[in-house]
Amino acid sequence: MQFVESQKTYNAALQLLAQRGVRIQDIAEIVFFLQENYISGLTMDRCEESVHAVLQKREVQNALITGIQLDMLAEQNQLISPLQEIIASDESLYGIDEVMSFAIVNLYGSIGFTNYGYVDKLKHGILEKLNDKRNGVHTFLDDLVGAIAAAASSRLAHRVRREAEERLQMQREFNLTAK
Amino acid sequence: MQFVESQKTYNAALQLLAQRGVRIQDIAEIVFFLQENYISGLTMDRCEESVHAVLQKREVQNALITGIQLDMLAEQNQLISPLQEIIASDESLYGIDEVMSFAIVNLYGSIGFTNYGYVDKLKHGILEKLNDKRNGVHTFLDDLVGAIAAAASSRLAHRVRREAEERLQMQREFNLTAK
Amino acid sequence: MQFVESQKTYNAALQLLAQRGVRIQDIAEIVFFLQENYISGLTMDRCEESVHAVLQKREVQNALITGIQLDMLAEQNQLISPLQEIIASDESLYGIDEVMSFAIVNLYGSIGFTNYGYVDKLKHGILEKLNDKRNGVHTFLDDLVGAIAAAASSRLAHRVRREAEERLQMQREFNLTAK
Amino acid sequence: MQFVESQKTYNAALQLLAQRGVRIQDIAEIVFFLQENYISGLTMDRCEESVHAVLQKREVQNALITGIQLDMLAEQNQLISPLQEIIASDESLYGIDEVMSFAIVNLYGSIGFTNYGYVDKLKHGILEKLNDKRNGVHTFLDDLVGAIAAAASSRLAHRVRREAEERLQMQREFNLTAK
Repeated sequence: MQFVESQKTYNAALQLLAQRGVRIQDIAEIVFFLQENYISGLTMDRCEESVHAVLQKREVQNALITGIQLDMLAEQNQLISPLQEIIASDESLYGIDEVMSFAIVNLYGSIGFTNYGYVDKLKHGILEKLNDKRNGVHTFLDDLVGAIAAAASSRLAHRVRREAEERLQMQREFNLTAK
Repeated sequence: MQFVESQKTYNAALQLLAQRGVRIQDIAEIVFFLQENYISGLTMDRCEESVHAVLQKREVQNALITGIQLDMLAEQNQLISPLQEIIASDESLYGIDEVMSFAIVNLYGSIGFTNYGYVDKLKHGILEKLNDKRNGVHTFLDDLVGAIAAAASSRLAHRVRREAEERLQMQREFNLTAK
Repeated sequence: MQFVESQKTYNAALQLLAQRGVRIQDIAEIVFFLQENYISGLTMDRCEESVHAVLQKREVQNALITGIQLDMLAEQNQLISPLQEIIASDESLYGIDEVMSFAIVNLYGSIGFTNYGYVDKLKHGILEKLNDKRNGVHTFLDDLVGAIAAAASSRLAHRVRREAEERLQMQREFNLTAK
Repeated sequence: MQFVESQKTYNAALQLLAQRGVRIQDIAEIVFFLQENYISGLTMDRCEESVHAVLQKREVQNALITGIQLDMLAEQNQLISPLQEIIASDESLYGIDEVMSFAIVNLYGSIGFTNYGYVDKLKHGILEKLNDKRNGVHTFLDDLVGAIAAAASSRLAHRVRREAEERLQMQREFNLTAK
């Protein structure tokens, strides 16, 4: 069996993110923005941890490497026409960037759909910077960053629920013992 | 070949929408809200026409009939546990409503994803009413209405573009003749 | 925070599966059929373990509970027309069953899409039985079972790869030490 | 408003398809293979007409142009590592090709999912040729061709149904008149 090792795709994805000006912290800030009203006592540390977990997924790494590569080629004017003009101008009817982002969100279930759409419209934090054409071509990257943030939010929502259920269970056992 | 006729599913979908308090105009208002900043001279008539076109699609009718049926059964307390509690309380980890909505948005391509997420978060217009638990169980319907509005918006965006291209073409032909 | 506990949705999903005549082993057999040519030394135990892991996911439980509930209501002739006729006859243009199944497959990434379509067409094993109208209404269940099998196959493929990578890594370290 | 005209994306998609050795007829043959048992009197002409209609969709053109561009860059060894190795070897855990294909199938509703998975596994007709590594890199193209065929099949199924409904309606009107 011949294959490309996960360590390689993981390292490449992280390196490309850094190279294109996106820090884990920037994505975590979007997660915090999306979840602070729903999760009491939410910390930035917890958001960063969730972003890290999402980045461990091979599908996420694949989407990042492919999307950033297309952004870079468009920046270097090396794509065939009209793909070159479409990606360079972030053409409004393109949609392949959304398709790729959607595959990321899906990994943590459908509850992340609305978060993805919401941050994409609002252009919160790093998304505003990526969306500014003066900072280079980020047609794919801005959608992918929003998708990773939405996925990390879904993951957090599932985790927080599990913890609440565990506390409830412990409480029940305690009550039983106390009787 | 045995089958259920389109006229039947279309009529049922429209009747159920009306019965649950949603008018075409209510959905068109969300379309207007989503598109007024992007389409100059947009009218409510045009938005309504687009909503009507989306409702012609069999997939949309199927989703509406299925979702509204589940809402109604939950309202009448006729579902098995825990599905009854999940739909009646619009449980945050459910997600099947989003899955169905998503199938509607997809019919007009990926450019509608973000609009769907955006209106779902904002609870604009009729969505606020549907989301108010005192008005009955609308766990599926509020998502489906948002999805139809997002789909109708995508459809409009494609149409408006086509018209702009046709004008451009006519202009070119005019210039050629004028030389 | 009010919510429906995971233990409840998990138990309900498993009980409904059993009640409708589907054993974990039946789903595992489809996984085995899909993967035996790709994974050397594959055992039924390993396939069953993977099916169990997929069934732990809340999204999968939600889809099962919703789909089986609709199948049962159609069997009892309790749905509104024309949804009743559509589900009872497994109407070929329906598609909501596929939409739900797809949400399950997506949880393990896009590599499961083709496996889902393949087993659905072939009606392998339990799927043939579920597809026989004389055995009751299983419009949703046959698609959901195929989707769970496809998801469990994707999960296995990711695991097997990880193990191969770990063996490779150990080999490298051994070679380094041996020098 | 600045944009890339549909005529341009349409022409580019068709030209790239031809350049990479795929004729409309090849895709139509897959449609015929998928539908001949379901549609009595199906002709190759009708299948070709359906493929042409699918190719009119902007989303389909976008997916083709993007996917074929990535295939070509991999063939010319011009992608960054490890994307180069992943696409050149059609790495089994990649999945972005499936994600893009899926966006095409979705445009005609969920009933096309299973057809897509089925032809992808079977490698019918042109798909076998595209899948042969000696004929160049077609990691994206083979999936996209299968997706276009599946979409054209869904479109046909919807059309054939509509025609049957129209015949039924005419029959009813005739009977009414004849009384």
